[in-house]
Amino acid sequence: MKPLGPIPDGYAAKDGQLAIGGRTARELVAEAGGTPLFVYSRRHMDDRMADLRAAMPDRLAIHYAVKANAWRPVLEHMAGLADGFDIASGGELALVTEAGIDPALVSFAGPGKRDRELEAAIEAGVTLNCESENEARRALSIGERLGRQPRIAIRVNPDFELRGSGMKMGGGAKPFGIDAERVPALARAMIAAGADWRGLQIFTGSQALDAEAIAETQGNVLDLADRLARAIGQGTLPRLNMGGGLGIPYFAGDTPVDLALVGKRLAERFAALPDTLAGTQLCIELGRYLVGEAGVYLCEIVDRKDSHGETYLVTDGGLHHQLAASGNFGTVVRRNYPVAIATRFGEEANEEANVVGCLCTPLDRLADKAMLPRAEVGDLVAVFCAGAYGASASPASFLGQGPARELLI
Amino acid sequence: MKPLGPIPDGYAAKDGQLAIGGRTARELVAEAGGTPLFVYSRRHMDDRMADLRAAMPDRLAIHYAVKANAWRPVLEHMAGLADGFDIASGGELALVTEAGIDPALVSFAGPGKRDRELEAAIEAGVTLNCESENEARRALSIGERLGRQPRIAIRVNPDFELRGSGMKMGGGAKPFGIDAERVPALARAMIAAGADWRGLQIFTGSQALDAEAIAETQGNVLDLADRLARAIGQGTLPRLNMGGGLGIPYFAGDTPVDLALVGKRLAERFAALPDTLAGTQLCIELGRYLVGEAGVYLCEIVDRKDSHGETYLVTDGGLHHQLAASGNFGTVVRRNYPVAIATRFGEEANEEANVVGCLCTPLDRLADKAMLPRAEVGDLVAVFCAGAYGASASPASFLGQGPARELLI
Repeated sequence: MKPLGPIPDGYAAKDGQLAIGGRTARELVAEAGGTPLFVYSRRHMDDRMADLRAAMPDRLAIHYAVKANAWRPVLEHMAGLADGFDIASGGELALVTEAGIDPALVSFAGPGKRDRELEAAIEAGVTLNCESENEARRALSIGERLGRQPRIAIRVNPDFELRGSGMKMGGGAKPFGIDAERVPALARAMIAAGADWRGLQIFTGSQALDAEAIAETQGNVLDLADRLARAIGQGTLPRLNMGGGLGIPYFAGDTPVDLALVGKRLAERFAALPDTLAGTQLCIELGRYLVGEAGVYLCEIVDRKDSHGETYLVTDGGLHHQLAASGNFGTVVRRNYPVAIATRFGEEANEEANVVGCLCTPLDRLADKAMLPRAEVGDLVAVFCAGAYGASASPASFLGQGPARELLI
Repeated sequence: MKPLGPIPDGYAAKDGQLAIGGRTARELVAEAGGTPLFVYSRRHMDDRMADLRAAMPDRLAIHYAVKANAWRPVLEHMAGLADGFDIASGGELALVTEAGIDPALVSFAGPGKRDRELEAAIEAGVTLNCESENEARRALSIGERLGRQPRIAIRVNPDFELRGSGMKMGGGAKPFGIDAERVPALARAMIAAGADWRGLQIFTGSQALDAEAIAETQGNVLDLADRLARAIGQGTLPRLNMGGGLGIPYFAGDTPVDLALVGKRLAERFAALPDTLAGTQLCIELGRYLVGEAGVYLCEIVDRKDSHGETYLVTDGGLHHQLAASGNFGTVVRRNYPVAIATRFGEEANEEANVVGCLCTPLDRLADKAMLPRAEVGDLVAVFCAGAYGASASPASFLGQGPARELLI
């Protein structure tokens, strides 16, 4: 038996089924027209943002990292919640523009920006988080050609990492940002060349659950920003994007971030900021933390079979929509996500079963040796934590399958 | 320094560039309209099939596993080369139909076949490789409803595996096929119920390079098929799909399958087949082996940067097209695929560099600490072995990127 990850708060049983926003899994599937289906809950996103606002110092702006979920209805909903938007490609720039988001609220990070992406961003007035000296120079020359002053920030490759983070984005050689010691010279050169100087982005890692580690890293980010601002020598830094980092529990034993502790520590630091940061716009950028737990993936059991004494529940979903849940995206050892039988929600787990997808590959697993209520063909399976890096981070056309349905409620 | 995988045969330098089918990488990119680009070579596929035909007994039919690469021009080319086609979904059935392939040559395996997929396959006259007793019964009842006799084969979960295979599909509990000991009863029931009995599929694994292991497993497959055919008790088995298994070298130290040895061993076995298999249609199904080395992924270097003494070549490609090459699909320890600077092909490797994609995630790596000729912005990078499980097995829309271009030459 292998444990399942913890089901996030806010999911209750109704008439023996998983209910989301008061509607049962079967009702949601009927409304969407079938499975496989991603259901995203506005209410969850609202609550999550409200909790964040309550815990964090008022002065901290909260940005949405669009890459987590750029499906238009989700993006439009986040447009009413977040203070800014971080994109990672020209494609995401088109998506935020279509969603009616003001480009002045948008910043663009990513190590391989093409000229046409820089052009579109500069034309729109998006802030560029420059990832290298080359890129900053290209931005300047494109701005000159277009007759537009580019909004330039510098992404810093910090000399420390976020302890315990699932994805380390700092500490040592990295393809992201500019090594901290080279940042002041580049910033001065950009300012001298007439760029609209927008400050720094310092991204140290993502998917961390340890509040002490997050708080310590945020402190380090503030210290580094102060040091760099002093070296740049232009007084107050216009903006500091402090990165993300806040994770969500996926696996057995994971516990939610102690948000109150992170907020308290940050408030203490904000109360004693150095001159270089006293008037700075301070923000964090969160993706998974804002939308990850707001999404549930529903698929239907199309076969129930036995092989050498093990039970397999074969669904019409799979890794083509849930690559990370299958254990094939950024993980070394596969562990179970939170998974449940949505049509027997809350029933006693009385059977050990493997939940697999419909793809003809042994990689396509949604739950290994999980204790679940006995399920039959026609039952629905729910995979939780499906709101971020699900649909868009999976190979939808693998084996001729195509994308899942999506529904925002 | 970490070694690169071996570049497949048939790729030569021309004017200092990688040439495919006599055309340089830059010419191909110009023809396609830009990067990132998958180039697939008809000539490679033809040669590979010719080598197989020369090595294998005449009597062995060679099927194409469509899942490896279902891009229409590739599929249309394979339609002229292969004796049969194996599909894994209703989506792939639509693709082979559009490519003009006779459904009578098609068989359909996959553990999660939905009713509508079974309907379409039975209507078209495709052979179903049934994965469970439930599925076989569903196929019968759908056939009855449609007034069509379903073509039924049984996929066997064998009690042995293919030693050294990258993907094990047999030996112990599996979601694929029906445990061998339950096959005879089901086969007899299907025949009694009036199905058009098409025999067995025994798939033991894929991506094996050891010819002895492959030959041994093929022998075991023939033995098992004989045992099952005798237990079924209907004389000669109509067809036996012996599975796939032949792999291609991806990583340093990998060597190609000794095809002559596999063919010789198989010919010895074919010369002494038991009565149950004497008149049987015998086939293998290959995907990666037929098209994997025929494809090259080309992307352009958009930045060259230094971080703490390491060199990063940042390309406009990445894991959104080359998930497996990034080390995030079915591998535990990341190793380098064969990668080269396509515009400096054959030049001395004089620099250690990391080749990364344009995605803002540390997972997006195409080559780690690789010795390459010094490359600059504008140079093209080639990732080899990109013909199978590339474009369709990667999350193309991740971070708003979208699909790569594709070109068949």
